[in-house]
Amino acid sequence: MDSPRWLDADEQRAWRAYLRMQGRLTARLNRQLQADSGLSLADYEVLVHLTDRPEGRLRPFELQRDLQWEQSRLSHHLTRMERRGLVTREECEEDGRGAFVVISEEGRRAIRAAAPGHVETVRRLFFDGLTRRQVAALERLAEDVLDRLG
Amino acid sequence: MDSPRWLDADEQRAWRAYLRMQGRLTARLNRQLQADSGLSLADYEVLVHLTDRPEGRLRPFELQRDLQWEQSRLSHHLTRMERRGLVTREECEEDGRGAFVVISEEGRRAIRAAAPGHVETVRRLFFDGLTRRQVAALERLAEDVLDRLG
Repeated sequence: MDSPRWLDADEQRAWRAYLRMQGRLTARLNRQLQADSGLSLADYEVLVHLTDRPEGRLRPFELQRDLQWEQSRLSHHLTRMERRGLVTREECEEDGRGAFVVISEEGRRAIRAAAPGHVETVRRLFFDGLTRRQVAALERLAEDVLDRLG
Repeated sequence: MDSPRWLDADEQRAWRAYLRMQGRLTARLNRQLQADSGLSLADYEVLVHLTDRPEGRLRPFELQRDLQWEQSRLSHHLTRMERRGLVTREECEEDGRGAFVVISEEGRRAIRAAAPGHVETVRRLFFDGLTRRQVAALERLAEDVLDRLG
């Protein structure tokens, strides 16, 4: 490998600020959710992806693509959510692509109960301190990075 | 609670793009690190925080404050890193505030070996697609959010 292109001082500051923000924001959102609704941020993300779909169901590989978790993490997490009654698995043997993950009535109830407090917290901790311009710039930046990630 | 202040369409798009970027970027950085150096992103973050300190040592509560992990996650993670020889614990009984976590020679070797590939990947996936203006705006946004998080 050629000698690495280190980050310059501006990039270094921006990167560290981004990592700090991400870590703290995630921790705060997780604590609020757990305290007020008993869901973790990971549960919430799985349930959001399922409720986005007609009939509330997805194949595990679709969830993995959306969430970008390691396969073993996703699989363990779904097993725990199934045990808690938040999702079920629905066999689908005819096409050989394995089971669907389906949101249960209990899962729908849990995310409906959790959403107002979670969204309020996202607003209070994140959007209330930003201008419309900053919000638009963030969306653009995230989309630019996602394009590179392919 | 009053009726929740839902996110409007612009905020919703920005928030989802941010979450998608964060998830995908973290997954890619983690995969590169694991494949090229056998460290996880979590190992890397712990080692970075330790190498930032004179003598390469911190108290667990300082690491927890910096990383914002749940205490049980941090504690399990440090135990695994200790078992792999990346950190050691140094008792410090006189002041009753518990042991230090100290980076080992093996830990220093591991992060020195991992850093060039990791930084190159951060540059390639993130900074190479952004303008200086976007980088400056990101730093400002992250600092604004961190101020609110207190």
